Amino acid sequence: MTAFARRLDNVTGSAIRELFKLVADPSIISFGGGNPARESFPVDTVRTLCDEILSTNGATVLQYGMTEGYMPYIDAYIEHILKPKGFMDAKRENVLALSGSMQGIDLICKVFLNPGDTILVESPTFLGALQTYNLYQANIVPVDMDDEGVVVERLEELMKKHSPKLFYCIPTFQNPTGRTLLAERRKKIAELASKYDVMVIEDDPYCELRYSGEKLPTIKSFDRTDNVILLNSFSKTLSPGIRVGAAYSSREIIRKMTIVKQSADTHSPNLTQAIAAEFLNRGMMQPHLESIIPDYAKHMNAMLEAMEVHFPKGCMYTKPEGGLFIWVTLPEGMDALEVFKRSVAEAKVAFVPGEHFFVNPAMGKNTLRLNFSAEPPEKIREGIKRLGELLETMQK
Amino acid sequence: MTAFARRLDNVTGSAIRELFKLVADPSIISFGGGNPARESFPVDTVRTLCDEILSTNGATVLQYGMTEGYMPYIDAYIEHILKPKGFMDAKRENVLALSGSMQGIDLICKVFLNPGDTILVESPTFLGALQTYNLYQANIVPVDMDDEGVVVERLEELMKKHSPKLFYCIPTFQNPTGRTLLAERRKKIAELASKYDVMVIEDDPYCELRYSGEKLPTIKSFDRTDNVILLNSFSKTLSPGIRVGAAYSSREIIRKMTIVKQSADTHSPNLTQAIAAEFLNRGMMQPHLESIIPDYAKHMNAMLEAMEVHFPKGCMYTKPEGGLFIWVTLPEGMDALEVFKRSVAEAKVAFVPGEHFFVNPAMGKNTLRLNFSAEPPEKIREGIKRLGELLETMQK
Repeated sequence: MTAFARRLDNVTGSAIRELFKLVADPSIISFGGGNPARESFPVDTVRTLCDEILSTNGATVLQYGMTEGYMPYIDAYIEHILKPKGFMDAKRENVLALSGSMQGIDLICKVFLNPGDTILVESPTFLGALQTYNLYQANIVPVDMDDEGVVVERLEELMKKHSPKLFYCIPTFQNPTGRTLLAERRKKIAELASKYDVMVIEDDPYCELRYSGEKLPTIKSFDRTDNVILLNSFSKTLSPGIRVGAAYSSREIIRKMTIVKQSADTHSPNLTQAIAAEFLNRGMMQPHLESIIPDYAKHMNAMLEAMEVHFPKGCMYTKPEGGLFIWVTLPEGMDALEVFKRSVAEAKVAFVPGEHFFVNPAMGKNTLRLNFSAEPPEKIREGIKRLGELLETMQK
Repeated sequence: MTAFARRLDNVTGSAIRELFKLVADPSIISFGGGNPARESFPVDTVRTLCDEILSTNGATVLQYGMTEGYMPYIDAYIEHILKPKGFMDAKRENVLALSGSMQGIDLICKVFLNPGDTILVESPTFLGALQTYNLYQANIVPVDMDDEGVVVERLEELMKKHSPKLFYCIPTFQNPTGRTLLAERRKKIAELASKYDVMVIEDDPYCELRYSGEKLPTIKSFDRTDNVILLNSFSKTLSPGIRVGAAYSSREIIRKMTIVKQSADTHSPNLTQAIAAEFLNRGMMQPHLESIIPDYAKHMNAMLEAMEVHFPKGCMYTKPEGGLFIWVTLPEGMDALEVFKRSVAEAKVAFVPGEHFFVNPAMGKNTLRLNFSAEPPEKIREGIKRLGELLETMQK
């Protein structure tokens, strides 16, 4: 058979893919995946918006659109997302509509990466992004984190050593750890990017899901040299199924990303962009967030409280201020993959073994990621109880 | 500034992109682009379908979906598109939902092409595909066509000579020529693909827009060795703005395409796939096609009749049985780019100069592509009259 391309040599399906299949078994309590709660979707609102969009602009949204994006969406993103973040000078030429921020990661790789080029990533990081970097045959170099996000001294050392093209960062309620990068580190990262001429991918899909603490400035807000590309997404705030996101950067970079997007899918669907635009323009986002955030906070607190009660001493875990994930570090020597197998089979509880989030999986053997958004609080309490009891047994 | 990747070295924005901008000038009669007629979109139907989809399955379509596709869409595509084409054994594992067939081209390149690998293409061919092949740093080798499509003897010579990975073919009402590949050549291409172990990309977005003559079997229908990937699209039959297409191939290839799609955009939007699924399942496609085809045929005939009257002797052009395009060959020595500039400025008529559709633009200096779907018949007659008069002047 015709040979596949070399970029596929070390790529297999993602672990999350397998986890999605487990989630389909209704008897399993799933802390895997990263799905928003089904109940959080504003279904009736979207239905009304669709109806009005098709009534007033039907032929336009069904016709071919521009690769740059559906202009009412671009304008709404500038007005309601970028300006409130302080980007008062943002123009249409600085924005590209995306089919989810995942597409932004892919397009940035296409624009910047030759095989063998180095990309720095937080360690651990989003496994979907790691898979994309592998497909671009990048040299992926992990950067250590502590509880306040990536360690900037280490980041600078690695920038000096590897002359990377890119640094990939999820600054707020990071996937998988739930950690948030300190404001002063954000500023420092923008300065380092400028000093060493590295492009920063600032992937910020969770930032609106804040349950406590103060909003922080983006890394992009400290960028004076066009070294940061900000990626936003409506997957966690409105709906992941509509696949709408956006990139914000310099005119030149957006132009290159637009050219490669044109070859990738011509443009994103107009209808889904129009839904997001109307949702923003009608002032529906803020009330929607205010309606879902208390629920998510309840989910998270239910999980943290149950962990406090049921997890054996020696298990450490993050206490996020928002987002969808809690990160667990088991006692040294415990194998999370072993726990996973028994947990699914015996406790009927699923999660993501942490090794998948590491460039070198051996570094994450005793870690795991818990998602708290998809299951209701009573199931969270029950699932954590069962998982805690299993951990207790296995620790002995 | 951080250097862009080598794959961008010879890539600029597409000519069609510039043409889209001309189309925005309302005083221009545009035969550029490849837009379906605005009037052809079933706006009210889509509005009703959206409403029902969101009423009955709202939370499901707004949630994350599977990379493979929204299952009701996959099933509808198998039942209403593949089975009527004779693919009675098609299973879900043989299908991948796409954000337009353009995405299929991109994913196939990602799965198969290393830099320098050879891809054979019809000459001329779809310029968007050429741009994608350039981005994958392919060695693009053109294959001669005659009025019955690609010349298979030449195709075999080039397969022997270049050991290509891929052959890209638009068999029905080809873009840009409007030509249709003979049935016996389709069979021969499948045999050659098998003999020389070349993967054929059969891109068939126009096949349902037939105004005369008999339906022909797909190349894929002659494929006994899994050497053909069939790409279908709803862009020309339902709506390009919803960006819905599909790939049909062997389980192994679909699996690899799924892995790279996962890294490219996670999945296509569920809502747009659900619209296409409902449109098919409710038996709306056939009546819709029957309502739009007579109009398109009128457009095409208006253009052909006006060309007969107004185009100078010495201009040759195709007389398609369907699709959206007519291909014009001007007398040797005439420069279509020169014609284009004067046509836009003086005659206020736009088209696509043919050179953009050639691997070696010099081969297409005296060719141009006319689209007849976007303008109403009276404008088509007026535009062709003006263009014919300009050609008459320039020929002297």
